Amino acid sequence: MNDVLTNLPIWQRLGDHARRVIAIPLADIVAVHGRFEQMCHHAAGLTVDISKQRIDADTLAALIDLAGTVNLEAQLAALVAGATVNTTEGRAALHTALRGTASAPQAPDHAVVALERDRMLAMAERIRSGQWRGCSGKAIEDVVHIGIGGSYLGPALVVEALTPAPGAPRCHFIANVDGAAARAVLSRVQPETTLFIVASKSFGTIESRVNAETVRAWFVERTGDPSAFARHVIAITGNLPAAASFGIAEENTLAMWDWVGGRYSVWSSVGLPIAIHTGSAGFLEFLRGAHELDEHALTAPAARNLPMLLALVGIWNYNFLGAQSHAVLVYSHPLRRLPDYLQQLEMESNGKSVRNDGSGIDIQTMPVLWGGEETNGQHAFHQFLHQGTRAFSVDFVASIRPRARGRELSHHDDWLLANCLAQAEALISGRDGGTVADPLSRHRAMPGNRGSTTILLDAVSPHDLGALIALYEHKVYCQGMIWGINPFDQWGVELGKTIGESLFKELTGKRTAQASNVTHRLIETIKRRRED
Amino acid sequence: MNDVLTNLPIWQRLGDHARRVIAIPLADIVAVHGRFEQMCHHAAGLTVDISKQRIDADTLAALIDLAGTVNLEAQLAALVAGATVNTTEGRAALHTALRGTASAPQAPDHAVVALERDRMLAMAERIRSGQWRGCSGKAIEDVVHIGIGGSYLGPALVVEALTPAPGAPRCHFIANVDGAAARAVLSRVQPETTLFIVASKSFGTIESRVNAETVRAWFVERTGDPSAFARHVIAITGNLPAAASFGIAEENTLAMWDWVGGRYSVWSSVGLPIAIHTGSAGFLEFLRGAHELDEHALTAPAARNLPMLLALVGIWNYNFLGAQSHAVLVYSHPLRRLPDYLQQLEMESNGKSVRNDGSGIDIQTMPVLWGGEETNGQHAFHQFLHQGTRAFSVDFVASIRPRARGRELSHHDDWLLANCLAQAEALISGRDGGTVADPLSRHRAMPGNRGSTTILLDAVSPHDLGALIALYEHKVYCQGMIWGINPFDQWGVELGKTIGESLFKELTGKRTAQASNVTHRLIETIKRRRED
Repeated sequence: MNDVLTNLPIWQRLGDHARRVIAIPLADIVAVHGRFEQMCHHAAGLTVDISKQRIDADTLAALIDLAGTVNLEAQLAALVAGATVNTTEGRAALHTALRGTASAPQAPDHAVVALERDRMLAMAERIRSGQWRGCSGKAIEDVVHIGIGGSYLGPALVVEALTPAPGAPRCHFIANVDGAAARAVLSRVQPETTLFIVASKSFGTIESRVNAETVRAWFVERTGDPSAFARHVIAITGNLPAAASFGIAEENTLAMWDWVGGRYSVWSSVGLPIAIHTGSAGFLEFLRGAHELDEHALTAPAARNLPMLLALVGIWNYNFLGAQSHAVLVYSHPLRRLPDYLQQLEMESNGKSVRNDGSGIDIQTMPVLWGGEETNGQHAFHQFLHQGTRAFSVDFVASIRPRARGRELSHHDDWLLANCLAQAEALISGRDGGTVADPLSRHRAMPGNRGSTTILLDAVSPHDLGALIALYEHKVYCQGMIWGINPFDQWGVELGKTIGESLFKELTGKRTAQASNVTHRLIETIKRRRED
Repeated sequence: MNDVLTNLPIWQRLGDHARRVIAIPLADIVAVHGRFEQMCHHAAGLTVDISKQRIDADTLAALIDLAGTVNLEAQLAALVAGATVNTTEGRAALHTALRGTASAPQAPDHAVVALERDRMLAMAERIRSGQWRGCSGKAIEDVVHIGIGGSYLGPALVVEALTPAPGAPRCHFIANVDGAAARAVLSRVQPETTLFIVASKSFGTIESRVNAETVRAWFVERTGDPSAFARHVIAITGNLPAAASFGIAEENTLAMWDWVGGRYSVWSSVGLPIAIHTGSAGFLEFLRGAHELDEHALTAPAARNLPMLLALVGIWNYNFLGAQSHAVLVYSHPLRRLPDYLQQLEMESNGKSVRNDGSGIDIQTMPVLWGGEETNGQHAFHQFLHQGTRAFSVDFVASIRPRARGRELSHHDDWLLANCLAQAEALISGRDGGTVADPLSRHRAMPGNRGSTTILLDAVSPHDLGALIALYEHKVYCQGMIWGINPFDQWGVELGKTIGESLFKELTGKRTAQASNVTHRLIETIKRRRED
């Protein structure tokens, strides 16, 4: 184990820096000659600009020293080498291997991984091309993907973001256990032309299990043929026996690896809806973008290593400048689900308070990650950013070229980007503080003096989106390493599941659950009001 | 002006309480006999349960004293009496009058308000019933609502949440200026059977203006008949001349009042898509639910006044227990957009740092409001709630009866509610702290000891949804009154617009904008990469 982070001389040096830098107007820091060249870098189709952060040359040097002290370079090498980075579960975290980045070819077996990817892509092509036939001989027109958390957010983000390949069936998603979610999707599809995908590592996740049973019952009721369902369902799981007993043929079952965590699984067979939507070529481009970012992360010096810089800027904002939340403001309608995706990636990975050795951490870890689709957010919550009392950090995310560039709509794109740049500018500059003589001017005043990062994709392409997701994955990993926590477990979600099962019994039957008296009383109230 | 809040004896008493209460395990506080009766109340179809908050009987008494000290009762009365509560813009905020709650009938003129509502509802019925005919004599099948911020979030939330009335056309929304947003909607509709609604108080909001021009060009290109557009467009605006010069007939223009702020406008003609979707009866029920909540807010004593209690619980969490964010976790697929709606309502209203008299506030105001659709969030960010380092507050929102109760899916609903209750329970109880001898147990340990509020609708009905929105509106107002700030202005969003217009020119032409050098350099980079 490392020494406690806060005892390191570099940590104390950063604290001293913070006290100095906080007193300098951000506009002055930003005005320094040569700054843009030092703080805006490009790799794998991504431009990352940290030149608007409250970071001067000394701060940057100190942050880079921090990266050296905790040895981020070696940590990233260990990740792709298959070291047991997931210490509490005794596993490697080899999501990078799924995109061809691994320094130890023996683990996992590359041939096996490649074989499974080829199976998945072949399946996707059969579905997209119309070769896959349903029970009445018709081609598939709708794909319904059932999964939650890591088995949902990645495919949903990427499918929504990317242009469909010619002939691609429509992809729908059911995640929530709310019956309204399943009903909304089923009302739009026909059983004979619909293919269901059930993605669940354990094949026992309650939401996906309940939804899978509901779609099977729906299918059988409408076709009148229980045996036909097997031609309309694919499982993606690590539990083959459970999939088989649910009625899913072995040839229609794809593997989930135990060395890939749910929130890092978009590169695996969980990405099947993506491959159906974009075609194999698109999926391979998506992997290639992530691989290029991996190569960059593994080789670039910290001073221009995009994920390391993002991680360090985060640490600086969260631990030294007091940021209480991190906003991801996405100036791209196709990428509108990115904040949801990153909420899981960042908050489930680094929303922790115990260090690898079991000791409690003495500083703050990941804050709330939130955000929205812009420019909508400007008309909703930006008031808070410009005139609220709270410290926060921001990533602006945009695309240099829009997804599908219709000439006639290009002014839309310029307005979009101009607004993105303008918000970052307004956060720095603010507006003059007003005078006592004119009270209204005090209300119009904006303190400014607030930093931000801008991340630009060259285009909303499979390649650049792959790189973007990999960028954040490595950012998260680097922050975990700096904090000395394990970004790959999620012990905090277990207890709620157990209590949920127990309260389900109480809601549907007699009081049995161990729970607070106020919870029992609320359940009584619910039952009474349901009967009214 | 009030005295400075923090100098009030009651504020200091609350601070003393907080230091005492923070040391008591929440499980002990919650176990007190009679607590549920004291802290769970029902009105207007809503159940609000604060019994799981870190609030003991003394705290509650002190919070109620705070409500008395700042005179929330009189403040609410002043709101509906048409007092100039929007001090910086010299206006009343009479959104309650739109749902029949006003104590001063002369302002605004009730007859005028009723007349405009009747016009709107009649228009909605003509559209829904098929009487409204497009240029080729066909009925309307799709409604495309163009608006952003307050002209978007309310209608989108409510339309998505509620069951459509028989024969209702599909409602679509275009808010974002990203061309991809307009393109996605236009690809699904036909000009001859589509009606556009342009909602913009100024009729000059850049996003809505650009989108309105784009749909008009699309329509004219496809029909070849510029004059036909007038039969396919409705304006909701306070700027009649601008709507007229855009080609919208006066009889197709509905009023926006200057005494209703954008984020409080869902009750006005801005709700037209709701009336089309639910029918007039549904819209009137929606107003009636809000009105019932108004009556409750105006008459119930603070100890069981739902919006006052929510406001006080928020103040307690934000200002005394150090909550850095407020999560709204919605256990209802139909209500999934509620966090987006509340982000605007709460953060734009109370994300401020200047008091009414122009002095700077010396305490924190509204934190980030974030959240998500559950149970999805449990598989995404709940790790952070259970094991993160950050203090937060939570509203769980659920419905006692689901929207459309299919018997065959009722176990879905029970799982949904059971999970909602279980998360609140897990936040209190946590899991045992583990031992040094077993390091893994330290990783599995959860501190618990975290409070929450539960808000239950009797059903996802127009009535209860109206009440829910009104509940949050009054919560926001009460918090604004406690903090001594104006919840009805939004001066912080002006500057970004101005800079955006200037950077649009720079992006599409020559360097002209006043901006930081790093912004100019980033624009150069963008232009260069666009040409690659």
